[in-house]
Amino acid sequence: MAKISALSGFPEWLPAERIVEQHVIDTFRRVAELHGFSGLETRAVEPMSQLLRKGEIDKEVYVLRRLHAEDDGADADPDRQLGLHFDLTVPLARYVLEHQNDLAFPFRRFQIQKVWRGERPQDGRFREFYQADLDVIGQDVLPDHIEAEVAIVMAEILAQLPLPGFTIHANNRRLSEGFFTSIGLTDIPAVLRSLDKLAKIGPEKVAELLVADAGATDEQARACLAFAGIRTADDSFGQQVRALGASGEMLEQGIAELAAVLRRVNAAVPGACVADLSIARGLDYYTGTVFETFVHGHESLGSICSGGRYDRLAADNRHTYPGVGLSIGLSRVVSRLLSTGSVRASRPVPTCVLVSVADEEHRTASEAVASRLRARGIPTEIAASAARFGKQIKAADKRSIPFVWFPGAEGKEDQVRDIRTGEQVAADAGTWTPAAEDLRPQIISESTAVSEA
Amino acid sequence: MAKISALSGFPEWLPAERIVEQHVIDTFRRVAELHGFSGLETRAVEPMSQLLRKGEIDKEVYVLRRLHAEDDGADADPDRQLGLHFDLTVPLARYVLEHQNDLAFPFRRFQIQKVWRGERPQDGRFREFYQADLDVIGQDVLPDHIEAEVAIVMAEILAQLPLPGFTIHANNRRLSEGFFTSIGLTDIPAVLRSLDKLAKIGPEKVAELLVADAGATDEQARACLAFAGIRTADDSFGQQVRALGASGEMLEQGIAELAAVLRRVNAAVPGACVADLSIARGLDYYTGTVFETFVHGHESLGSICSGGRYDRLAADNRHTYPGVGLSIGLSRVVSRLLSTGSVRASRPVPTCVLVSVADEEHRTASEAVASRLRARGIPTEIAASAARFGKQIKAADKRSIPFVWFPGAEGKEDQVRDIRTGEQVAADAGTWTPAAEDLRPQIISESTAVSEA
Repeated sequence: MAKISALSGFPEWLPAERIVEQHVIDTFRRVAELHGFSGLETRAVEPMSQLLRKGEIDKEVYVLRRLHAEDDGADADPDRQLGLHFDLTVPLARYVLEHQNDLAFPFRRFQIQKVWRGERPQDGRFREFYQADLDVIGQDVLPDHIEAEVAIVMAEILAQLPLPGFTIHANNRRLSEGFFTSIGLTDIPAVLRSLDKLAKIGPEKVAELLVADAGATDEQARACLAFAGIRTADDSFGQQVRALGASGEMLEQGIAELAAVLRRVNAAVPGACVADLSIARGLDYYTGTVFETFVHGHESLGSICSGGRYDRLAADNRHTYPGVGLSIGLSRVVSRLLSTGSVRASRPVPTCVLVSVADEEHRTASEAVASRLRARGIPTEIAASAARFGKQIKAADKRSIPFVWFPGAEGKEDQVRDIRTGEQVAADAGTWTPAAEDLRPQIISESTAVSEA
Repeated sequence: MAKISALSGFPEWLPAERIVEQHVIDTFRRVAELHGFSGLETRAVEPMSQLLRKGEIDKEVYVLRRLHAEDDGADADPDRQLGLHFDLTVPLARYVLEHQNDLAFPFRRFQIQKVWRGERPQDGRFREFYQADLDVIGQDVLPDHIEAEVAIVMAEILAQLPLPGFTIHANNRRLSEGFFTSIGLTDIPAVLRSLDKLAKIGPEKVAELLVADAGATDEQARACLAFAGIRTADDSFGQQVRALGASGEMLEQGIAELAAVLRRVNAAVPGACVADLSIARGLDYYTGTVFETFVHGHESLGSICSGGRYDRLAADNRHTYPGVGLSIGLSRVVSRLLSTGSVRASRPVPTCVLVSVADEEHRTASEAVASRLRARGIPTEIAASAARFGKQIKAADKRSIPFVWFPGAEGKEDQVRDIRTGEQVAADAGTWTPAAEDLRPQIISESTAVSEA
């Protein structure tokens, strides 16, 4: 017999945990749609030539092979060999190019799908997990104000999730580049790569890297660290940068852009966003605002939601596609919330009412009650067996179903019992209504209860 | 540059098409939850030893390999080698065994996920597609009435989908076996396999198969074909079976069970179910009622929703898990509805209102309007650029957004225009409400309009 066991890196939830994950997905979708983003799904696979296009060999790709594949060389041809997508950005770039004639730009899309990474199992990382992405893609042009807009939508999503609190940390690539150039540094990518390691290896090691890899003097390295230490909730970061002796047109443009983002995001979702000049985002392709997001009390998770402005998501002979995007590592967040016990569902089933069955001959009467309740949107099931009532109540209790319904014998009224309190009252299936918080499973977080609407 | 193109067998939708698919998924989920089914997701991968457990070598499995896998033999060990699941039943069996101590039985679950099959590309079949499954799993026991119950839930789902009409065809394994045994046939699996090909190869070829493979005489073969020709909307099928000269306890039990299923399903969803004794379901593991479902006018699709009763989904040393399940080939249905033009979304975006921007200095005023509309659940976006109003209206029109909002200049009232009629009226963002059918994209089917609620 095949071994039955959990697979390391492939998280799977029990029904009550899945309700929490579904709530997070539903919330993301609801807010994104409210802002006019279209829900998109792309196929799970891409040609290996697409997946390896950016030379990101550090991404551990899962390659597919058909068990009964013909030996026709397809496995060796990178245009025909298929792999599972490791993020939702590579598929988006391909989708936009493929369907550019059928899309209206700016194209606003959200996408919530599993991605796969063939990480080493000993790293304890997920190999299969949900990402939830929000992007606005322009054709050739994309106004700057989209940077704040995408951050606002994401802040509204995060504010509605059962998180203990979060802060979006923003920086601006022009601000960073303008500063580094102004103090005489030239290898900007190397500077960004070094600073990106700040949280991991600390300032001393970063200073060494800046000298060794980015060609900085000790003084320049100190200035970079001072720069990366600037974090303000208002736009005073500009003053502090200038006080480090930097100046220039690009720097001032970056300062103005970041100030605008900060102002607009905080106007929409007060306190959601701070300027944090340590945010480097190692990747080359960002060109404007960059974002990372931390959950209060769970900073060890690292950034749970990152992204920014890129001027070239994709391009062909006719068009270039700039974009602004943010991506939540949804499974990682859900996993943390569940494993720390800070969020749970009030019950593991959607069921609000269990209709009891007096005996199998009267099952039809129970079905009639259930139909009437469901017709009014009340999730209802019928007892699986006509056991004695005590046993039926126990079965409901085991699954935390709050109400058990007793159809009345001929001529008598129905009764409904709240099995948490034991209170039992006469009720009519055409009019009885449970409390709003009992209708569906509630998402209960440490501090507040959020309805799974 | 890597080639950008569609991949044969991996369907992908444009935003308006995705709205139709999402509507089908949402409908399935809503009805399933109303009946107390828990939404489940399992990981996309299973050990190859699980996937090949039933020796179903005809299933074309996609095997995974990590691009940078260590050469540690994992690729050769079927307990460690991973493949993509090809259905949702194998994962359910594994999940139930793995989590049996954390589940309450009967366990009611629905599951809507992509599955993958490495079919030959020339067959024109999907290699990645959604399945939507509904199962009730018992521990050691599962009452018979669950067979009708699962069919009722599925009939309610199908009745709410934008289908031109459907019929669930039901048969009963005991009825078939009782009949075949009664007329003297012994190799029942061979008889079922032969009859399962009726739609594909026709009665003459099936008669030849029955003689050649199932050891039937010509007379027995004729009786089987007469049996398989019985199709009734009421329980008169029983009379017709007996009229063929068959009798016996198992036969009568099967007749009674099928009559009960027919009566209960049609009581709940009138006209949804017929008895069709040609339904054989080739697979060994069914033991009671079996179902296939056909869409009116699209019979060439074959059965879009099949399943039945099985007495042994999974088992270990302590328990056996019987179940009743039905599964919709969701992508195939959606693909057919879209490709024949019989269903479409009224617009490709969730957006109901586009708030225009007079000039970039007044973008804040437009944002304030949008916030007030969204706070009342109205999907709203803001014009991406402060182009002249004619251009902004055209941008809304291109995406079929029904309303454009014009924030009033200082002191003046706002105006909203229905760009389909050109009608423009004064409006307040705190009270204006669109018609219910304009709030969200509508699913429009050939005959009726269904709201994407």
